[in-house]
Amino acid sequence: MRLVVPQPLTPEAFAPFGDVIEASDQALPQVINHGHTRRYHDLAGLDVAEGGGRPIVSIFRGRPLAAPILKVVERHPLGSQAFIPLQHRDWLAAVAPPGDFDPKALTVFRATGRQGVNYRRGVWHHFLLALQPDSDFLVIERDGPGDNCDEILLDTADQLEVLL
Amino acid sequence: MRLVVPQPLTPEAFAPFGDVIEASDQALPQVINHGHTRRYHDLAGLDVAEGGGRPIVSIFRGRPLAAPILKVVERHPLGSQAFIPLQHRDWLAAVAPPGDFDPKALTVFRATGRQGVNYRRGVWHHFLLALQPDSDFLVIERDGPGDNCDEILLDTADQLEVLL
Repeated sequence: MRLVVPQPLTPEAFAPFGDVIEASDQALPQVINHGHTRRYHDLAGLDVAEGGGRPIVSIFRGRPLAAPILKVVERHPLGSQAFIPLQHRDWLAAVAPPGDFDPKALTVFRATGRQGVNYRRGVWHHFLLALQPDSDFLVIERDGPGDNCDEILLDTADQLEVLL
Repeated sequence: MRLVVPQPLTPEAFAPFGDVIEASDQALPQVINHGHTRRYHDLAGLDVAEGGGRPIVSIFRGRPLAAPILKVVERHPLGSQAFIPLQHRDWLAAVAPPGDFDPKALTVFRATGRQGVNYRRGVWHHFLLALQPDSDFLVIERDGPGDNCDEILLDTADQLEVLL
């Protein structure tokens, strides 16, 4: 088992895996709605049309793992999947590059409660890692024909213990 | 000018205008992710493919009107538009049926901070009505070719004063 300290989530560090969805000062907002709204525009590369797919919106209500040990990863070969926290609570995103899964490449990010992510199609990731009970996330993903989830159970040697 | 008291937002009352996006006890969740997540599945009828459209995700940061008087409505003839609050703050949604705009049909709902809405294509609505400064909302809408926004400035007689 490998011990890891989560690294801060930044758009640069996360770029190989997808998008960080946040109202960042770096993204210059447009002023709309007669001056009442700032629009941080088009923050995620949604990829949901493959094979007759369509975008769907769901809410995932997560609870923490019993112990902070990552034992499983999954990927969606047919589309992207976005998670946006609805309560401004920090959370974790664990990812590895697409292609053959390399346990040594598994990286853990700590997202602030103001940061969502969009996992690019095929990116390996742990399922939702909430840090508090009853943590709600908006999820935007592909629905449609075909099998869109591959899962790998990690050997004990490849599991990660997250130092929080 | 007409005085209105907002009515509570419920899926039934809002059905003519679109969807309420919430993790409701009425929507029986699926248990996924090895028991760690409840999935409230497919909560909005996204309608974004018309005329080469694609779904995009943005964050809108809203501030309240200077006075709670509604003077303008808009509609998106080519697609739906969803708003989900990111801070659990109550907000208002003012809507009227699609077709020729009827100011007498303008209805104001008060959403809780755990309720988003998806405006169906062509539904008249006021722009984002936050009740506190710096209120962030996730927005899922259509991007693509064509003019997707009609706006009407209301005559003074047709304006609504919202009693909060």
